Order: sequence, then C-alpha cells, then structure tokens
Amino acid sequence: MEPVYAGIDIGGTDVKGGFVDALGRVRERFAVRTGDHAGPEGLVAALAAHLRRADSGLDVRGVGVGAPNGNARRGTVEYPPNLPWPGVTPLADLLAEASGLPCVLDNDANAAALGEGVFGAARGIEDFLFITLGTGLGSGLVVKGALVRGHSGFAGEVGHVIVEAGGRLCGCGRRGCLERYCSATGLVLTYRELAPDAPEGVDARAVFERAEAGEAAAAEAFEQTGERLGLALANAVAYTSPAAIFLFGGLVAAGERLFAPTRRAFEANLLPIYRGTVTVRPSGLDDDAGILGAASLVCPPDFAT
Amino acid sequence: MEPVYAGIDIGGTDVKGGFVDALGRVRERFAVRTGDHAGPEGLVAALAAHLRRADSGLDVRGVGVGAPNGNARRGTVEYPPNLPWPGVTPLADLLAEASGLPCVLDNDANAAALGEGVFGAARGIEDFLFITLGTGLGSGLVVKGALVRGHSGFAGEVGHVIVEAGGRLCGCGRRGCLERYCSATGLVLTYRELAPDAPEGVDARAVFERAEAGEAAAAEAFEQTGERLGLALANAVAYTSPAAIFLFGGLVAAGERLFAPTRRAFEANLLPIYRGTVTVRPSGLDDDAGILGAASLVCPPDFAT
Repeated sequence: MEPVYAGIDIGGTDVKGGFVDALGRVRERFAVRTGDHAGPEGLVAALAAHLRRADSGLDVRGVGVGAPNGNARRGTVEYPPNLPWPGVTPLADLLAEASGLPCVLDNDANAAALGEGVFGAARGIEDFLFITLGTGLGSGLVVKGALVRGHSGFAGEVGHVIVEAGGRLCGCGRRGCLERYCSATGLVLTYRELAPDAPEGVDARAVFERAEAGEAAAAEAFEQTGERLGLALANAVAYTSPAAIFLFGGLVAAGERLFAPTRRAFEANLLPIYRGTVTVRPSGLDDDAGILGAASLVCPPDFAT
Repeated sequence: MEPVYAGIDIGGTDVKGGFVDALGRVRERFAVRTGDHAGPEGLVAALAAHLRRADSGLDVRGVGVGAPNGNARRGTVEYPPNLPWPGVTPLADLLAEASGLPCVLDNDANAAALGEGVFGAARGIEDFLFITLGTGLGSGLVVKGALVRGHSGFAGEVGHVIVEAGGRLCGCGRRGCLERYCSATGLVLTYRELAPDAPEGVDARAVFERAEAGEAAAAEAFEQTGERLGLALANAVAYTSPAAIFLFGGLVAAGERLFAPTRRAFEANLLPIYRGTVTVRPSGLDDDAGILGAASLVCPPDFAT
C-alpha cells in the first residue's frame, strides 16, 4: 500500500481535502460545503466518512488541517470570523477521534509555509519567509527548517507590522499595518485613493485589468504596492536573514506588474551585507496549496521524494 | 579542578578577558590594549600567555571571543572599522593554535545575546530578543534557545530596519535606519534637532543630565527616542514572538526616562494577540557582559548552575 497523508483546507465557503503522495500529487479529492453543517460535529462526521473512503491502495497515515484562526498548540479553531462555529472548536481532537487517524491542525498561513518547504519551491532551503497576499497579508517564518512559533505560538504576523504611523485602519484595531497596503485589499484601497471616481466594486483583478489596459492610476497602484512591499521585505530580512522569500496568493497572479516594483524596492532597501544572499520569487505551490500545506503539517519533513 | 571558560571581549581601545565559572562569576581578569599590537599576531600571543597563566585550580575548557564584525561561520574578524587590522583576520584559528584551547568567535552583539541566555536575565527563556543601545543598535534573536543566524550568518540586524523613508543617513549607506534614531547617537541627533543651539560635544550622558535638570528639549529627546523604540519593538514581536525583550548598553542607564516612553509606545502598538505575552526589561548582564557573552559562545548551554 502506498503511504499518503490527507490534507484538509478549511475555508469560509468550502472545505477541500485530498490524499497527498510522496510526489506531492493529490491522489483523490473530496469537498464539503462549510455552511452545510450547523456545528463542527456534522462537518467532522462528513470528513471522517471521506477519509474512510480512501482507495484501498492508499495507506492513509495521518490528516493535517489548515484553518483560519487555527491554534497549533491546542489543535483548535478559535473565534474564526468567517466560519459558522463561534468560540473555540477542538477540531484536531474531534477529527482524530472520528477518523482514528493522527490529526495535526495549524493556521492556514503556517500550513502553506510548511507546504512550500515540503512540496514546493522551498524544498532544501533551510531559512525562508513565506508571504500570502490575499485579502490580508499572511506570513510564515522558517528558520533552520522549522516554522517559528515563538512564545505566544503566533509568531510570523508580518502583515501586522505597522508601516505607517496613523495610517489606514486595520481589522486588528490599530492603524498603518502592512496588510492594509500590501494585499489584494490594500491594492484596491490605494487604487481608490488614486482614482476616487472609480466605480464601486472594483476588486484587485479589475485593477490589474485596468493597469493592463493602460490606465495610469491602476498601474500606479501596483507601483506603490510593490514599493511598499519591497521595503517591508528588505526590513524583514534584517530579522531572520532568509535565503528566499516566497510570495503566494491571488495578488501574485499579477506577475511582473507586482514583482518588478517589489524587487526594485527590495534591492534598493536591502542592507548591503544581505545583497546577493536572498531572492524574492513566486511560490511553487499551485491551486492545491491548501491541501498540500495541510498534508505537510502531519507528514514527515522528508516525505516528499 | 574547577571548570571555567575564558571570555575575551575585543574592543577598539581595550581587549578584556577573564575566566568564567558556573556561577557566572569572572574569576580572574586580564586586559590588553588593542593598539599595542600592530597586527593580530602580537595580540594573539599576549592573549595566549594570559590564558596559560590561569590559576592552577582552574580547568580552562575553551575560549570564546566576541568581536566587532565577527563572523561566526568562519571564526574571522572582517573589515572592522575600529580595529587596527584591515581585511579578514582568522582570529579563532590563530588563538586556538596559540593557546591549545577550543576557540569560538562571534560578533559582540550575538555574544551578548547568548550571554543573556546563559548567565543573565534570559536564563530559562526559550524565545527572546536582545537589543544593545550603544553607538549603534545591535541585536540578537534567540528562537527555541538558539541564536538565529539565518542563511547569510548575519541575521538579527534590527538596528538597520528602515523606519523613516528618506530619513537620517546611516553608516550603512542607506537612510532612515532604526539605529540612527534609537541609540546613544540617535538620541543626541534628536536632541540637537530639538535644541539646535546646544554646544558641540553634547553626548548621551549630557542629554540625560540636562533632562534630569529639567531641560525640556532633553526630556523630549528621550520621549521621542522611547516612542520610536517602543513602536520598533512592537513590530519586532510580529516576527519571532519573543517572551521578553532585553535592553542593554549605555543608553539603558537612563532608566525610566527611556523605559517609560518605550513601554508606553510598545503596549500601544502591540498587536492584540501578543498582549500579555512579552515584557520589555533591562538586561541582567552587568559590566562583565562582554566577557560573559564571549564565554557563553563556547561553554555548554547548561553550564551555569
């Protein structure tokens, strides 16, 4: 029987899962709608049924779960703003009991960072920084091959570094956090400042399309986003001195429109002793990042061949 | 025979050394004037002679060296601006050969950070941040009990995080580095901006004395320095989530005049999930920090009893 690890990616709309093999391929997939179950017990039962239904040729050795607001120390999901379960849910314990499999849970950004190291472009890289540019800016710091969790268990919140005193109001209650500038949301906010007459409902993709169509304000919004991001990443290097910084998430689809100003500002602001020691590049994880990241929480670090 | 480790602290004026016992006491001291030797060979011979002259009751098990511009990977001192040896000096190898003892070298900020963990106030703390406020701002990050070195070997340059785009020119060639605001030098620069008619040659101690004597500009300079530092430390927590941040160096002698605005800005800017998980406090190392830090490079992590 072939060893595989289940990865389960919990999102606000869908829960996606699959069995990941040593080549980093998702061998079987399953999905559950998050909102179909009033409480976590129904979802857990549905997921356990999927786990039991694995092909008889697969030896499912464990299950990893990536969840928003996941607490790795306790295996819990805590006060998730976009999930239908209020309070604290001991999801890892519930799923382990229902499935009979070892279960490891972590927050989705940490899971994706580990997934980059096990299955993605960071394979073999000891020290790296993983950044997700989506609605917010999530991050995971890997030092000597291990995710930094810190004393609180919540290390790696680079999106909440304050880069503009008194700046844009953030969901965390403070002002000027990096993620209010460098994320899909931040790009749109910058664009709306530059083009106050733009119609309601313009999202990051629309800003990209407008930039591609030659609209100056949209192009400038990408420039400013990249400049901020490049400086922030140069500053981040002064902490853990990674060999590479991987950018992931919806905004990365903008390609050079984001990467060119980011790399330019990064190189211009990097402390000379770090020059030539660190690259900024796209994640090697594709659409299966959530499943691969979740599976990497539970598989051995050298599982991928 | 009692086991001890030699610690040697290389400074621009003096080289100070001593034998450190398991209680963190310096049992015998020696000193060499840095400028008395044209090249490193003479200094190494003088140090080796001191190492051999240890009291017969002491079992010297190794020697640690903290040096400005020390490269731990190679055991070298590289292009130090304030030492009389140009280029790259393989000081660890030279000293090991001359003394017959195992020798470990690192830069002085890293050595002091490790010393805080082995002999100082960070004993038993797995994750902490160590900050030296002197001429510049030096730092060492400790994660899970180990100093973070990163891919380049030069992790932990928090003094060179850019906090003010286009700000004060730094010795590194860039503008707006934290150490140009939060250090003895930075304090004096801020004071001179606030009191442009102040006499030449006012140093950090004089600014402190003026503040104590009721001079408003001097008091304000400490306020602004603490505010910047508190924000910078709050941002630093978002990387490695330390349990404590230790402040060391000449500026720390200002006590509450520095700590009060620093803690106020720190708490005001800390991400809510970190509140209550991290304290900002003075180093537990005293005037022997250089020697203790150097000895901690070579002694076992659990040497202190």
